[in-house]
Amino acid sequence: MLEKINNPKDLKQLNLSELNELADDLRSTLMNRLSKKGGHFGPNFGMVEATIALHYVFNSPIDKFVFDVSHQSYCHKMLTGRKDAFVADEHFGDVSGYTNPEESNHDFFNVGHTSTSVSLASGLAKGRDLAGGHENIIAIIGDGSLSGGEALEGLDFASELHSNFIIVVNDNDMSIAENHGGLYHNLKELRETKGQCETNLFKAMNLDYIYLDEGNDIGKLIETFNQVKDIDHPIVVHIHTIKGKGYHEAEIHKEDWHWCMPFNQENGQPLDTTYHQNYGDLTCDYLLDKMKKDPRVVAVVAGVPTNIGFTEDKRKQAGKQFVDVGIAEEHGIALVSGIAKNGGKPIFATHSSFMQRTYDQISQDLCINQNSATLIVNTASIYGMNDITHLGIYDIAMMSNIPNLIYLAPTSKAEYFAMLDWSIEQNQYPVAIRVPCNGVIEDDREVDQDYSQLNRYKIEKLGEKVAILALGDFYQIGEELASEVEKQCGFVPTLINPRYITGIDETVLTSLKDYQLIITLEDGILDGGFGEKISRYFGLSDVKVKNYGFKKEFLDRYDFHDILEKEGITINQMLNLIKNTIQS
Amino acid sequence: MLEKINNPKDLKQLNLSELNELADDLRSTLMNRLSKKGGHFGPNFGMVEATIALHYVFNSPIDKFVFDVSHQSYCHKMLTGRKDAFVADEHFGDVSGYTNPEESNHDFFNVGHTSTSVSLASGLAKGRDLAGGHENIIAIIGDGSLSGGEALEGLDFASELHSNFIIVVNDNDMSIAENHGGLYHNLKELRETKGQCETNLFKAMNLDYIYLDEGNDIGKLIETFNQVKDIDHPIVVHIHTIKGKGYHEAEIHKEDWHWCMPFNQENGQPLDTTYHQNYGDLTCDYLLDKMKKDPRVVAVVAGVPTNIGFTEDKRKQAGKQFVDVGIAEEHGIALVSGIAKNGGKPIFATHSSFMQRTYDQISQDLCINQNSATLIVNTASIYGMNDITHLGIYDIAMMSNIPNLIYLAPTSKAEYFAMLDWSIEQNQYPVAIRVPCNGVIEDDREVDQDYSQLNRYKIEKLGEKVAILALGDFYQIGEELASEVEKQCGFVPTLINPRYITGIDETVLTSLKDYQLIITLEDGILDGGFGEKISRYFGLSDVKVKNYGFKKEFLDRYDFHDILEKEGITINQMLNLIKNTIQS
Repeated sequence: MLEKINNPKDLKQLNLSELNELADDLRSTLMNRLSKKGGHFGPNFGMVEATIALHYVFNSPIDKFVFDVSHQSYCHKMLTGRKDAFVADEHFGDVSGYTNPEESNHDFFNVGHTSTSVSLASGLAKGRDLAGGHENIIAIIGDGSLSGGEALEGLDFASELHSNFIIVVNDNDMSIAENHGGLYHNLKELRETKGQCETNLFKAMNLDYIYLDEGNDIGKLIETFNQVKDIDHPIVVHIHTIKGKGYHEAEIHKEDWHWCMPFNQENGQPLDTTYHQNYGDLTCDYLLDKMKKDPRVVAVVAGVPTNIGFTEDKRKQAGKQFVDVGIAEEHGIALVSGIAKNGGKPIFATHSSFMQRTYDQISQDLCINQNSATLIVNTASIYGMNDITHLGIYDIAMMSNIPNLIYLAPTSKAEYFAMLDWSIEQNQYPVAIRVPCNGVIEDDREVDQDYSQLNRYKIEKLGEKVAILALGDFYQIGEELASEVEKQCGFVPTLINPRYITGIDETVLTSLKDYQLIITLEDGILDGGFGEKISRYFGLSDVKVKNYGFKKEFLDRYDFHDILEKEGITINQMLNLIKNTIQS
Repeated sequence: MLEKINNPKDLKQLNLSELNELADDLRSTLMNRLSKKGGHFGPNFGMVEATIALHYVFNSPIDKFVFDVSHQSYCHKMLTGRKDAFVADEHFGDVSGYTNPEESNHDFFNVGHTSTSVSLASGLAKGRDLAGGHENIIAIIGDGSLSGGEALEGLDFASELHSNFIIVVNDNDMSIAENHGGLYHNLKELRETKGQCETNLFKAMNLDYIYLDEGNDIGKLIETFNQVKDIDHPIVVHIHTIKGKGYHEAEIHKEDWHWCMPFNQENGQPLDTTYHQNYGDLTCDYLLDKMKKDPRVVAVVAGVPTNIGFTEDKRKQAGKQFVDVGIAEEHGIALVSGIAKNGGKPIFATHSSFMQRTYDQISQDLCINQNSATLIVNTASIYGMNDITHLGIYDIAMMSNIPNLIYLAPTSKAEYFAMLDWSIEQNQYPVAIRVPCNGVIEDDREVDQDYSQLNRYKIEKLGEKVAILALGDFYQIGEELASEVEKQCGFVPTLINPRYITGIDETVLTSLKDYQLIITLEDGILDGGFGEKISRYFGLSDVKVKNYGFKKEFLDRYDFHDILEKEGITINQMLNLIKNTIQS
């Protein structure tokens, strides 16, 4: 049946039985891509019927869909001219895992962060009203996304539109892991009473509301969407769906099947079963041990517990010393600031890209107040996620310029845990730690245990002429470069591990005043980064400085080797620069 | 009566009639400070009784109060040993306008941004629970703050605490201006039904709830707070108060009296009635004219309409082309991104400090999608607000390192309006404009009308040896410096107006390669700022670069002259540097 569908109009010719057949086709095509390439499994399997019904009832792209996070938009892609990317292995690379206006005029935004759809879509609605248009605007948001501040702000605003605006709440009773937050009690009650209970979050936001329990029933969905099509005011359509619907393993183990690596369709086992030691699991084991010894230690996450290894069993072990606040990073940061203020030892962890969601709380709630919370910043690297919405190369620029924050860049496993332990036990500073992304590196360098003397760079090897300041997980590149300089240039350069992203070590830098060249290496954009501060420091001196890092731009689905080469961050390119710059 | 109160314990000896007498004393003392020094009027006059009752019932600082925004904490300060700062003119400077742990152990956080109290206080509660404590934790939040994402995230989280936590919602039916958002319909219904109506936002967040209509009645408040003292679970205490209570003018004109400059107590007229031309009013007039000509132009603010001059009458004139989203900056940015995507011409304006609340939306919702919204960034300057929580010197570091954003720095009235007009009419870029804070400057320099050729610095005066890149409202300092160099050093330096904060003009910079010294001047912190990018650019050259700007630190209640001098940004200090650096 999918073969017949080249755009949403084709869909409208089908009868219900054909639409159900199409649903089967979509699931097997999803299975084809997901088992071979990996991606978001549960969200897409759960949304098959709703996506068909949305396209059957509404007229995309005149009517406009905005998918929250948009990790559930695979079926939408297949129905809007992009099915090849799911059917044919050689076309997998043609589409991203998220909505993408460059791919199709049925997509309106590049979306990858949570909780944005209602606000973005209400913008489309307001734009329509200003221009005198009449199309339907539909936001599709999962229950897990509702806890995010932006989503709640959007719901609060929506009724002020006084015009067509449809918010489909796709409630599968799951976030990535289980939901957390009081509103989920209300969603449960709404599901249990088929939308009839007295307390209703959406009505409290002054929104009209209808409920459909059969969120995986195409006929019922079409009926429901037809009821709200062309409506003249904002309304919430709360539908109950089953995450992972249609694949038994995914329906049972919802958290494990939120996102998958390539797997065997027969038994659901991942194709690559090699275990790679990683900082997530190591951090979790370390924290669980720490928690046993000290009841004041508490780990806080915002919807991504396995980011620091807290799988379901580990969360149970931690008990009250583990808090998942739901997707609510702003609250998460304020919470750890408060915990630290009242004697606790809190650790908040998330991805670099999601730390962006809480800039003001890091600045105002945490750093102005100098409370001693520890932030663990993960996937902060060019080696991290490579989707345009999930990049980890902006956090140095974002965080390191916030006053009072101590941002540390460990260069090995031993240094990471030394910094983490010091941070948890000290009570003077808010501290963030940038977890290395170049593997768990164990080497024989000695590491300090105490970081309370701020901004002390470590000279790992004292040499002459050229100093290499290699930050965080680019330290190993610096190490290799130093070794090649020694071999090829006939002198030993100085190799420095700066450790502190957020400050200048004037003693060390002054000791370099007779050097010819200083090289900085950082795993982040150059603008606003670490290297520029070194350049500024040497601005009035004769020392030459070259900053290596990345251009300020949004990258999408890159190969990190290409980026490193583009920016001159290969040993040969850097050696050439050194040879051309220094005088013998 | 206030004379007898040196700490909250003294309060507990008073009977109801004495407490009411104390309320009168507090109001006249508030009046003393506010009429002479200015400050937050309405919030403090409305909270007199509630503050007395809170301190009567609870035992601060064992029991812990967290005031949202904390602009309503004046009475709390008077009751906790800081009354001199309200009674005696010479002690006005002893306290800040917000809670401040450095002032008193009855204050737990420096707070000035909205919507943070529930989250911060829930952190105190969690810290207490980890440590096995039993004190009461009380967040006090106004209705206007409830629309902020962090507050809604906090409310959603609160019920997960399962322990003592009291959220006092101080509902005076006002934000700074009128409230906006669906939840305010629910608050209204709750007030009208004395908390009995079916729909209840707080219950939808799984929170226990009680209502008190007489929020300015000390006896009733004491009774209510006694009911919830030592409660074993989270509860919302919704109290209805009157903003500005006790001063007729303030009760009637609530928006005007939210905050006041020094005024005449007799008639409420400000002592300084000189009208100063300002960018707020000018921007409003410009936009109203623009709106008349083009129905797609729409101005959006987040709770601070007069930030761009939209007083009540102007808002009425703009009609649907003006949107106040309430205190909800995240939603505001996503909204304007959506409006631009659907053909509108949106302008979002707020203070530099409040732009911080929406970093991720600027990056993800707006800039990844390259939608052509205009952001007006106000009070972005050392000349702006000087409270630690409202500083305007971090926005260059925060915003200018976000890819795709064009951040412009006008240097005069003509340039500001040329940039604003260009930005509204173009449809290629998200653009932010940093409004000058050194007055509305009209000079005879010609300004360009088209800024679509990005990153073109303007050489305002071509000279030799020394180039001065003077950004935004520090242009005039650069101008003066250039003139003094000419007088005192016997040569004409080159004076450059960079205009584009977010990019490098390689053509102009290359033309400076034989200069001896380049000076950058910016009205913001140096770390992550504009000047460092220039230093990086010249890192491998022989050109010396000196960046002028501010240290990365949180300042509080400073005199800007002191800061400028501390950072060497006086003509004499800079002249000395030039003389010492250049060779004749």
